[in-house]
Amino acid sequence: MRQALDAARDAAARGEVPVGAVVVRGDEVVAVAANAPRALCDPTAHAEVLAIRAAARALGRDRLEDCDLWVTLEPCAMCAGAIAHARIARLYYGADDAKGGAVEHGPRFFAQPTCHHRPEVYAGIGAGESAALLRGFFSTRRAS
Amino acid sequence: MRQALDAARDAAARGEVPVGAVVVRGDEVVAVAANAPRALCDPTAHAEVLAIRAAARALGRDRLEDCDLWVTLEPCAMCAGAIAHARIARLYYGADDAKGGAVEHGPRFFAQPTCHHRPEVYAGIGAGESAALLRGFFSTRRAS
Repeated sequence: MRQALDAARDAAARGEVPVGAVVVRGDEVVAVAANAPRALCDPTAHAEVLAIRAAARALGRDRLEDCDLWVTLEPCAMCAGAIAHARIARLYYGADDAKGGAVEHGPRFFAQPTCHHRPEVYAGIGAGESAALLRGFFSTRRAS
Repeated sequence: MRQALDAARDAAARGEVPVGAVVVRGDEVVAVAANAPRALCDPTAHAEVLAIRAAARALGRDRLEDCDLWVTLEPCAMCAGAIAHARIARLYYGADDAKGGAVEHGPRFFAQPTCHHRPEVYAGIGAGESAALLRGFFSTRRAS
């Protein structure tokens, strides 16, 4: 989660909403990514999607059943769907997202019968630091 | 929808689940894409995500509020999330997907309070041809 939080801080420095994600296989970091929809002109460029895409490319396959995903914020519906499609084994996330999250909020995607793969889910890891990063980012934007 | 169905047929010819998508702005086709997770080693490479990413890149921005998306199959949660993030104005889709769809099935994402943009939705366009393509693809795979 340390590396995911560092990636989130990098995103904030570039004016992107500070969310970071890391894909890990055993002890090996396969991919690290930060939220970048503006820089990439890509509305799908959330940290989770970018990390999953980079990990799949690095491993040369479209399923990551031996990989875990660490992300600083509760995934949205798009990212929860991507996590299921990628067959991620374990999901570790930081802050809750009551407004846009899709794991414990809104569609609660992994509990839906149309979800074909449910990772093990561990929430609240590094949540305080992640939430502080997000609060700081949005308060600076509102003030400017 | 004709071009989306053609793209779906191309996907089937490459051994990918036959789904195609087109992003349109007014009378102009901005992007056409076919489902390609295997070929691209990318679990997020559904037709909708690829078409949205290509259209955003072509237009140089991460919001497509003046664009419509045509897709041959009801979008899944990942793609419905991507459609909302991209601010797609109108969604036209073909066949229903009771097993994996997220518009009229499962999470019904656009009806969730955590969905921040709801496109106008028109279902069932070219549904017969789209469903026949999918049935043909899966029956060939089961037989082989």
